[in-house]
Amino acid sequence: MPYVTVKMLEGRTDEQKRALVEKVTAAVSETIDASPEKITVFIEEMNKGNYAINGKRLSDQ
Amino acid sequence: MPYVTVKMLEGRTDEQKRALVEKVTAAVSETIDASPEKITVFIEEMNKGNYAINGKRLSDQ
Amino acid sequence: MPYVTVKMLEGRTDEQKRALVEKVTAAVSETIDASPEKITVFIEEMNKGNYAINGKRLSDQ
Amino acid sequence: MPYVTVKMLEGRTDEQKRALVEKVTAAVSETIDASPEKITVFIEEMNKGNYAINGKRLSDQ
Amino acid sequence: MPYVTVKMLEGRTDEQKRALVEKVTAAVSETIDASPEKITVFIEEMNKGNYAINGKRLSDQ
Amino acid sequence: MPYVTVKMLEGRTDEQKRALVEKVTAAVSETIDASPEKITVFIEEMNKGNYAINGKRLSDQ
Repeated sequence: MPYVTVKMLEGRTDEQKRALVEKVTAAVSETIDASPEKITVFIEEMNKGNYAINGKRLSDQ
Repeated sequence: MPYVTVKMLEGRTDEQKRALVEKVTAAVSETIDASPEKITVFIEEMNKGNYAINGKRLSDQ
Repeated sequence: MPYVTVKMLEGRTDEQKRALVEKVTAAVSETIDASPEKITVFIEEMNKGNYAINGKRLSDQ
Repeated sequence: MPYVTVKMLEGRTDEQKRALVEKVTAAVSETIDASPEKITVFIEEMNKGNYAINGKRLSDQ
Repeated sequence: MPYVTVKMLEGRTDEQKRALVEKVTAAVSETIDASPEKITVFIEEMNKGNYAINGKRLSDQ
Repeated sequence: MPYVTVKMLEGRTDEQKRALVEKVTAAVSETIDASPEKITVFIEEMNKGNYAINGKRLSDQ
């Protein structure tokens, strides 16, 4: 605890994901005073056919 | 806002998903008075091996 | 199945929620050919202090 | 209702998943007095590149 | 890991919740070979006005 | 997009939450190259009676 979930479009590189979980963990740790080894980060990746804004999927725009 | 997630078995066609996000967005917009361009829809697809009712997975029925 | 979650700011009336679940269920049913009695809708309500865009909570704007 | 989601690393066998949903359903049923046919279990599988503790992904450890 | 979420109607007693997390943890541990101290259980409680089946909220039935 | 959910125990101050969403948004923005106004952060708060590790709720420890 805490548990952080980042939901984003698929396609980020390993380098980006590595930086993402490192920086997000640091941001959470310093702002709510949680020790980093208690912080969990989940990445959830969506594809453009399963994500819509304004009634239209990204894959249809 | 609002954010709508539809969790369903995989296998729907693109045509069905396209209609789904369009109609769900309209239904949300008209009932809670939210403008369509502020409505997000996520589709999450499950496979039958990861979904169970009554203690039995769909793939085992 | 399917399972629909609508996440939105708190404050909608019972009348609005009643219409919301009815219309969303109909929209899902007709577009992906699922029978209405198999469709579940969850409403999740957020308060403005727990929701942020652009790094700023709604309650701080 | 209730709805149980088990989020775990990918790689479990069908045999393990079959036992998992059966035993979890029984555990929920007997402790909160819900009939088994009303209990739904979802399994969500993560890969090691999308899961981090202490700012480091499992795939990087 | 794993992370288990049990979503159910509000109103269960502390005694029931205590038994629920204990038995569910045991069920997960023995079936997928995870050590109990690595298993997290979250309980999410819904009210009847935010939960609908067949287009009708439980509070309206 | 992306959408970030931070699930944590209730009890943090407004000051902490304000800093949390600001720093997390910055961390996500700089690491995956997303513009801040497209980043959404949700905070979900748990109470100690609905959260268990090792089969025991925090409120029972």
